[in-house]
Amino acid sequence: MTTTTPDLITRDACVAADQSDPLASFRDRFRLPDGVIYLDGNSLGPLPKQALERARQVIESEWGRDLITSWNTNGWFDLPVRIGTKISRLIGGQAGACVATDTTSINVFKALGAALAVQAEDQPGRKVVISERDNFPTDLYMTEGMVEFLDHGYELKLVDDDSTLDDLLGDDVAVVLFTHVNYRTGRLWDLVGVTQQIHAAGALAIWDLCHSVGALEVAVSEAGADFAIGCTYKYLNGGPGSPAFIWVADRHLARARQPLSGWWGHAKPFDMAVSYAPADGIRRFLCGTQPITSLAMMEVGVDIALSADMALVREKSLALTSLFIGLVEQRLPDHPLTLITPRSHEERGSHVSLRHPDGFAVMKALIANGVLGDYREPEVLRFGITPLYLGYADVWDAVETLRRVLDENLWMAPEFQLREAVT
Amino acid sequence: MTTTTPDLITRDACVAADQSDPLASFRDRFRLPDGVIYLDGNSLGPLPKQALERARQVIESEWGRDLITSWNTNGWFDLPVRIGTKISRLIGGQAGACVATDTTSINVFKALGAALAVQAEDQPGRKVVISERDNFPTDLYMTEGMVEFLDHGYELKLVDDDSTLDDLLGDDVAVVLFTHVNYRTGRLWDLVGVTQQIHAAGALAIWDLCHSVGALEVAVSEAGADFAIGCTYKYLNGGPGSPAFIWVADRHLARARQPLSGWWGHAKPFDMAVSYAPADGIRRFLCGTQPITSLAMMEVGVDIALSADMALVREKSLALTSLFIGLVEQRLPDHPLTLITPRSHEERGSHVSLRHPDGFAVMKALIANGVLGDYREPEVLRFGITPLYLGYADVWDAVETLRRVLDENLWMAPEFQLREAVT
Repeated sequence: MTTTTPDLITRDACVAADQSDPLASFRDRFRLPDGVIYLDGNSLGPLPKQALERARQVIESEWGRDLITSWNTNGWFDLPVRIGTKISRLIGGQAGACVATDTTSINVFKALGAALAVQAEDQPGRKVVISERDNFPTDLYMTEGMVEFLDHGYELKLVDDDSTLDDLLGDDVAVVLFTHVNYRTGRLWDLVGVTQQIHAAGALAIWDLCHSVGALEVAVSEAGADFAIGCTYKYLNGGPGSPAFIWVADRHLARARQPLSGWWGHAKPFDMAVSYAPADGIRRFLCGTQPITSLAMMEVGVDIALSADMALVREKSLALTSLFIGLVEQRLPDHPLTLITPRSHEERGSHVSLRHPDGFAVMKALIANGVLGDYREPEVLRFGITPLYLGYADVWDAVETLRRVLDENLWMAPEFQLREAVT
Repeated sequence: MTTTTPDLITRDACVAADQSDPLASFRDRFRLPDGVIYLDGNSLGPLPKQALERARQVIESEWGRDLITSWNTNGWFDLPVRIGTKISRLIGGQAGACVATDTTSINVFKALGAALAVQAEDQPGRKVVISERDNFPTDLYMTEGMVEFLDHGYELKLVDDDSTLDDLLGDDVAVVLFTHVNYRTGRLWDLVGVTQQIHAAGALAIWDLCHSVGALEVAVSEAGADFAIGCTYKYLNGGPGSPAFIWVADRHLARARQPLSGWWGHAKPFDMAVSYAPADGIRRFLCGTQPITSLAMMEVGVDIALSADMALVREKSLALTSLFIGLVEQRLPDHPLTLITPRSHEERGSHVSLRHPDGFAVMKALIANGVLGDYREPEVLRFGITPLYLGYADVWDAVETLRRVLDENLWMAPEFQLREAVT
């Protein structure tokens, strides 16, 4: 890694920064295990203390006591819209245009299906879907699955090292599916600028917000995005596999049809009509019965995010990621670490990724020494920086552990060499 | 209702039957609210006492303490296959050919997509999908959505009052999608005979087992079924909206491709490859990240069902539904009730449905008097009979309450006339 010349940072300065941190009180809302610095909240956020109580309420009182009546009396049936409306505020969408439901993968399918249907009416010649080679794979796999299944001559083209979005954005492009913050590198797209670029070429923009919602200010309406999807178990701390969300721009809602037309999206689901008629508004993007315990519990994490000032979150996130990068450069100049996260604030999400030729073993050693980050192919050490429950001293201590693991060659121990799957 | 002439049944005889019931001890595994006879377990099964403890373990220990490592150390990633393998035993499928995942609606889409793809290779001229007009609507809506989205000339044809399966089963039929037990009437199809009939016509058979799994013996492999799907929150007591399942016959597994090709179905999900390659075996029917709390908690209900002798469950189910029908005929001969559930054991699932011209108000009055059944359009009072936690005296008492509601015109009270939605 090339060393820049930051001012020398001290642990005392980090402790002082924690003491004046306006977000410091949020940490108490989470249960964090002792002896662990958790730098994987960009993969699975930790447990909000209120979540267990909410789950107990759903299970013991709503399911156990009120049973089937809970669909109405305890509002189960309305949860996707109620929580979706909250998520819409977090991503700068208007009220009522977002539902919490299903998985990110399934919602990619709905958004892409709806977008292609809109284009097939308006500009039927457009047969190309653009995405990124380095996108999170499920976005590519779902697109590939749809293209093959439809067999209508659609083609998936990928922006990669040899091409830019501009190179591919011809008048044959129907839809661009990009991820706002890259899962591996943490690179952040300019939501406004890229959306304008896509629209200028006559295409529609679907944004995957998995690694940005809850981590930074997002404004899908202002950016003019067409569709957005994302998960809730990362920076929203919704719990393992908590349902995802899908947001649709108002201008598409009235006519957008999505292919997974299940009964929850029907205009009158309890009329039990033989034919499908989509509900007005965003409910038409629902499909089947949702996992209520996981869904209701997720709302606790969403409420925490809503109660935080997202501008402060972003400011602290950039301060912490900059601190992390600065400390690595200051204290670990002699190791083969390569920063793959952009240095520019405008291009950085909320995690930092470093390549190391023995990244897998290094991450295992780090975890064994109490710093929980994760590993991503190829050779990538990934550190999620989550301002609601991490402080400046945590970052200092994490980098210090990384220094020890590398300086003392702790990663060379045989138990860290075995390559079983890491999630 | 035409009255048959059953022997006069007494409450004492019901109490005696409960005392010699070999399944009686199962009731203690569930939390049932006081003062309620719960006849809606065919819509949402009650809370198994162990479920809250299992949820607490997942939330507090696995999520709260072990965090991201739980995907491997606590087996989260394997839950769909582990639980699916158990469900496979409950439906008479072979090991490893079933996964617990997503919703019934989504799994209909996968099964139908895979079945149509198989037929498109083997018998490309077949363009008709047959289902039942009286099927649970989401099965029809998902089929309609796929047919329209694909726009490959497929057509959905429905068996209804004016047609039989035989009438429609021509050499243009690719797939038949039937529901084993009808959600409204409780009519049970002959799984073996109908599957043979479908195969004889060169079509593939998809069975929806939502109202049969956990309620009676199912043998999909023996019947030669091609695909099966179903939910787990009814007779399996998995909790509100607990994930559904999909089963695939061995002969289709190796080549069956389903259109929702998300990363959980990839051969090597953590290689983060750019192109999709389906996993060997049933894992290719997975799509995205599952709601772990709802999924893990559901296993408690599946385990209870597995520990019961399903032949005894079926025997008691038929005894209880026959008792219900007999008591209604014996004690309520003068009310406008019409049985729409088949009398023949071979054609009856595990619920009893009666039409009454004022069914909606009658059901509301019944619920207000402690008998929780549900209402389905048009005019249908539906009573789920669930042998694991209902006894003979419960059935007696429920019919006695129905008698009171009708004899004393309790349903005519103004508060029972308002028609808001009932789930």
